Amino acid sequence: MSFKIVAKDPKSGARLGSFVTPHGEVKTPVFMPVATKGSVKTVSPGELHEMGTQAIIANALHLHVRPDENKIAAAGGLHKFMQWDGTIFTDSGGFQVIRKAFGIKITEEGLNFRDFYSGAARLYTPELCMEVQKKIGSDIAMLLDDCPFHDATPEKIKDVTDRTVRWAKRGIAKGRELGIPNLFAIAQGGTNFDLRKECIEKLLELNPDGFGIGGLSIGEPKPEMMRILSETTHMLPEDKPRYLMGVGSVNELLDSIALGVDVFDSVFPTQCARHGTIFTREGRYNMKGAKLENDFRPLDEGCQCMACKSYTRSYVNHLLREGEMFGMRLASIHNLHFLLDLVKEAREAIQNGTFEEFRKRRTLKDDEKEDEGSLEKSRA
Amino acid sequence: MSFKIVAKDPKSGARLGSFVTPHGEVKTPVFMPVATKGSVKTVSPGELHEMGTQAIIANALHLHVRPDENKIAAAGGLHKFMQWDGTIFTDSGGFQVIRKAFGIKITEEGLNFRDFYSGAARLYTPELCMEVQKKIGSDIAMLLDDCPFHDATPEKIKDVTDRTVRWAKRGIAKGRELGIPNLFAIAQGGTNFDLRKECIEKLLELNPDGFGIGGLSIGEPKPEMMRILSETTHMLPEDKPRYLMGVGSVNELLDSIALGVDVFDSVFPTQCARHGTIFTREGRYNMKGAKLENDFRPLDEGCQCMACKSYTRSYVNHLLREGEMFGMRLASIHNLHFLLDLVKEAREAIQNGTFEEFRKRRTLKDDEKEDEGSLEKSRA
Repeated sequence: MSFKIVAKDPKSGARLGSFVTPHGEVKTPVFMPVATKGSVKTVSPGELHEMGTQAIIANALHLHVRPDENKIAAAGGLHKFMQWDGTIFTDSGGFQVIRKAFGIKITEEGLNFRDFYSGAARLYTPELCMEVQKKIGSDIAMLLDDCPFHDATPEKIKDVTDRTVRWAKRGIAKGRELGIPNLFAIAQGGTNFDLRKECIEKLLELNPDGFGIGGLSIGEPKPEMMRILSETTHMLPEDKPRYLMGVGSVNELLDSIALGVDVFDSVFPTQCARHGTIFTREGRYNMKGAKLENDFRPLDEGCQCMACKSYTRSYVNHLLREGEMFGMRLASIHNLHFLLDLVKEAREAIQNGTFEEFRKRRTLKDDEKEDEGSLEKSRA
Repeated sequence: MSFKIVAKDPKSGARLGSFVTPHGEVKTPVFMPVATKGSVKTVSPGELHEMGTQAIIANALHLHVRPDENKIAAAGGLHKFMQWDGTIFTDSGGFQVIRKAFGIKITEEGLNFRDFYSGAARLYTPELCMEVQKKIGSDIAMLLDDCPFHDATPEKIKDVTDRTVRWAKRGIAKGRELGIPNLFAIAQGGTNFDLRKECIEKLLELNPDGFGIGGLSIGEPKPEMMRILSETTHMLPEDKPRYLMGVGSVNELLDSIALGVDVFDSVFPTQCARHGTIFTREGRYNMKGAKLENDFRPLDEGCQCMACKSYTRSYVNHLLREGEMFGMRLASIHNLHFLLDLVKEAREAIQNGTFEEFRKRRTLKDDEKEDEGSLEKSRA
């Protein structure tokens, strides 16, 4: 991967960069809308393009289970299947370990679970994870990781982190053999400095094309997350993209960019949207609130997204209260546009050497409290 | 209303016509997508335009209850509220009498029900129905009707039909006073020839701008519906639009056009779409079927809709099985496009004097059986 750093912020670790994948150039910092199952919920690829999306992220494990990578390969790959011609990242599925849906049991071999529908036993190994991402046609594949719960004991975190490293070795060997364009390793270690440092050092030996920062934004206190990020982000190589997985609130994005993080994804904007929470420069608000019934301003004043250009809060309030999907679609388009725009402006600020002023100006006062409810569901 | 008949089919009662509303010309026969609560479910106004939609229909009673007509008026009317600049019909709410959601009790005054949320008692009179449609900014308002169940006794149908006529008198007086651009009366009478004839004759005296044919496609056997239509459609004045409410399956559309019906609406295409039923020239099929997993053809071969031009059955099958809203959106766009195209081709066939050949060619062999499940939910 040819990652170029175009500009560095003089007052922080923020950097402006770019990398090229088989589906085009990606300017960093970049935020990726999440298409877990091959669709960004309610939104079309055309709408994603219009709002300036450079890359999206799908989930290899989900797509392996359904519809199955062979079907996607037969369709000509995920880009063609879902009609998205920009860059596609695919997450490995390691994050699903801490979600209940799959009921995953870990063995040294890989992830063991039962198919939802058929009940059949499934084994998803680091090697299979690579085969899936190869068949899907991923531009940037994540190596399979094991992910500890945020409140795990140090012993458990150590165990999980060591396994992540062993799986990364197996995965990268397979991924290189298959010729996957780009492979990112995922660092684990919870909020434990020694474990995360050790994990990063061992992953460095594998020489992946970039690094995911995993196991954060999964329920730990935000100050803990920012502490471990500030302690360890600089350990990741300067000349490779750093991808903080599952982060998508304004302050976390700004603070992480300041630490030198380049890539982000989160279901937060679209999940919020479907529940009626709207992002604005002043913070988030509940679009279902009664006081918005007669509010004929756009969702976010000054926003140039399709939803804000054409529709009022009053209308979207009505649609969301009535459960109309078009309301969820408008809110999703706005929230995604809002975060993509924030990150675009961050790029411009880094270019202009004004990132710290930008960060100060755009940091939300009440961002933290509201985040907590969504922390466990944030990665692709 | 200036309804012009442009061409008549030599072999049937089909006619090509047009009328002009404050929001443009509508060529008939016309099929209207349903936006009960001010949104065609999952679909944007831009997409409706792209598929050739001339008019949509919203529901005055639903919009009265929520968000309430005063809010829509404050927004500048429904056209502006929902960003649809084509013609808007509004149904009166009479159809909701036979649906359970509102728990309506009829008195001579009007519809009595309780607000879902507040529990407050509401009275919706024929006059209020007009005030609502005036405030909404409807281009064509339907007079409030009372609607009997399809299996009601002749005495009950007589009672309901007489009330419909009395309400139509009250409604048209109010509607004319308010200066609503166009008022359509709704004929009732079930499948009883004498009652429907009597109702039509009495409504003719009121000189409305057009006629709704109500109380059909609500669960009665299809041959009964076609019989009463064929016996009574010709009684409606030649020089006014005839609107068969709630009809949206292929054979019913074709057969009704042949009898001289001009206007149609139905939730059938969008409701089917959300449940995975796809319309094609060969009939309907279940998009969730396992055999479609590896079917890389468009939803309907030869269709030029956005969904068919870009996506495969395999992809939409995957999305619908996974409950992804974008799948419902693609299916809705296709089904609406399919019916709009059918009616457009019917217009061309009438123009060319080949409607009967067209009808024969496009009539589906297995349309009838599949319709039955959806009959009770078909009107706006």
